Amino acid sequence: MNKRLKHIVAPVLAIGALAAAATAIAQQAPKPEQLIKWRQSAYQVIAWNTGRVKANVEGAYNKEDVIKAANTIAAIANSGLGALYAPGTETGKGWKETAVKPELFTDKKAGELAANFNKEANELAKLAAVGDVVSVKAQLGKLQGTCKACHDDFRKKD
Amino acid sequence: MNKRLKHIVAPVLAIGALAAAATAIAQQAPKPEQLIKWRQSAYQVIAWNTGRVKANVEGAYNKEDVIKAANTIAAIANSGLGALYAPGTETGKGWKETAVKPELFTDKKAGELAANFNKEANELAKLAAVGDVVSVKAQLGKLQGTCKACHDDFRKKD
Repeated sequence: MNKRLKHIVAPVLAIGALAAAATAIAQQAPKPEQLIKWRQSAYQVIAWNTGRVKANVEGAYNKEDVIKAANTIAAIANSGLGALYAPGTETGKGWKETAVKPELFTDKKAGELAANFNKEANELAKLAAVGDVVSVKAQLGKLQGTCKACHDDFRKKD
Repeated sequence: MNKRLKHIVAPVLAIGALAAAATAIAQQAPKPEQLIKWRQSAYQVIAWNTGRVKANVEGAYNKEDVIKAANTIAAIANSGLGALYAPGTETGKGWKETAVKPELFTDKKAGELAANFNKEANELAKLAAVGDVVSVKAQLGKLQGTCKACHDDFRKKD
């Protein structure tokens, strides 16, 4: 490449690289409001599916329906919800104002409670695959206990 | 049981049975607004996770992250989203007014498009487990194609 051409091409390449880097950063760091909306959505999907399991264990039990619901809860539990609590999401509006307490971002207990939720969600999915209604009902109770534990400590009252 | 006692107990049992039945019905049929909120939430969680896969195939590829994201998309695809399009949810407000077109509830093509989405979501989860970035990228494109196909036909423009 001759020197003159290099003077033109090099800055263009540099701008291209910067733009690509900026795109990568933008992808890796969605806005706080978006993260809050996603986590509010994730808990809604969990609520939908715990409600389905509850309706099944209290009414006519449909094994396939419970499997679908439990697998959805487990997949979301395993999805890495922690990423939706990135710095900057302590306050703000997703679908609505976040109800999270600031302590969630500093208290180590939050991580323990999240791990409990994961454990019980995965256990529910295993039991759902077997299909014994008594075990599934008991496990749903354990799972809901982990939801409540976190809400008690880290969710503002309405 | 003596006759007198039976006269007292029988109605109480009947009321109990009615209450249980009413509870079961209430559980089986959440309000349309709730169903709309759940489906809007489900698509947000899908969007979060397709965005994660996209960031991975365009940037530094983290196999575990892609597996988590793809498994979440597949679980939601397999969860039975059709139940969230129950009669009565053609219009109404969940987190916001539904953008669904009325044709979705009558056009058989909607079911075909939903099945395509399921198929490609499950294929993405399979490929994510293998971890070949080229295959995952191509499959993400196929999956997003099924999202667009349904949006084009059945989602109102903003």
